[in-house]
Amino acid sequence: MTKLEKKRFDGIYALPAFPLVLVTVERNIMTAAAFSFFSFDPPCVMVGIRPENLTFELITEKGEFGINLPSKEQLEAVRLCGSVSGRSTNKFVQAGLTPQKGNVISSFLIAECPVSLECRVVHQVPFRGSHVWFVGEIEAVQIKEGYQRDQALMYWLGEYRGVGEVVFRVERK
Amino acid sequence: MTKLEKKRFDGIYALPAFPLVLVTVERNIMTAAAFSFFSFDPPCVMVGIRPENLTFELITEKGEFGINLPSKEQLEAVRLCGSVSGRSTNKFVQAGLTPQKGNVISSFLIAECPVSLECRVVHQVPFRGSHVWFVGEIEAVQIKEGYQRDQALMYWLGEYRGVGEVVFRVERK
Repeated sequence: MTKLEKKRFDGIYALPAFPLVLVTVERNIMTAAAFSFFSFDPPCVMVGIRPENLTFELITEKGEFGINLPSKEQLEAVRLCGSVSGRSTNKFVQAGLTPQKGNVISSFLIAECPVSLECRVVHQVPFRGSHVWFVGEIEAVQIKEGYQRDQALMYWLGEYRGVGEVVFRVERK
Repeated sequence: MTKLEKKRFDGIYALPAFPLVLVTVERNIMTAAAFSFFSFDPPCVMVGIRPENLTFELITEKGEFGINLPSKEQLEAVRLCGSVSGRSTNKFVQAGLTPQKGNVISSFLIAECPVSLECRVVHQVPFRGSHVWFVGEIEAVQIKEGYQRDQALMYWLGEYRGVGEVVFRVERK
């Protein structure tokens, strides 16, 4: 079957899914799927934020952020944190989530999330589209005992998903 | 259950999965999971390449790349393209893949992949870790009729996965 030419945006739409994360800065929470690995050494991740979001202001001001990986069971809280603005809502309270002090950053993490990464901004990507990307070096990590990747939540443009079944596993040396 | 402090790299390891893509430049193919959305407008994606890889040289020289999304059925070809170097191997031949001319870029795409994006490099992220990230604006898109996100292949540090089941779908307006 041959491929058909499509509009440029359809290429973005065709992407399967990205890890869904809860970005915390100070006492605010934002749901984001514009999230990626950046580097093994130094260990860095990156997150893309729309400039009109409160989180953009907060990250710019504080130079730090928490990345909290929710589990599938937290879908409702995740949807709430993605649908209201921190300018008018205390999302910790409204979503029933517990703020937990970081070990390194002054922003709060989310106690209920199985994984939390404390990140210091080391770079802001100067090329801007709809999102501004911040690279954060991971300075501290907290993980609940027994956490497996399979617990995480994925998302892309309208579809919340679990993580798929492993179809092949490389034996670790 | 409380969270335990972990080493910084464990934060990278805990990430669930990212879309696995085949990056094509000229007649070479590289398997990459360091791949992300970048922007809706302009429509851009980004890919992280280790500087020692042939693909790094090729992207730097040509200023373009193809992003080809393989399907689960292409696992063997994907693994091959991620395990040998294009310096010594013609990966199209060895993996049994068909080079397909792009409409806009001069590099080849992969005919068998259900989705191919033709990207022009618009930015190279100056902050470097283990990977160098190239932002590419999507200039042309080809998608096979009937393609669904569920066909895609995901990967992270040793685990190849399908895309997970949809647990909630937002109604499109």
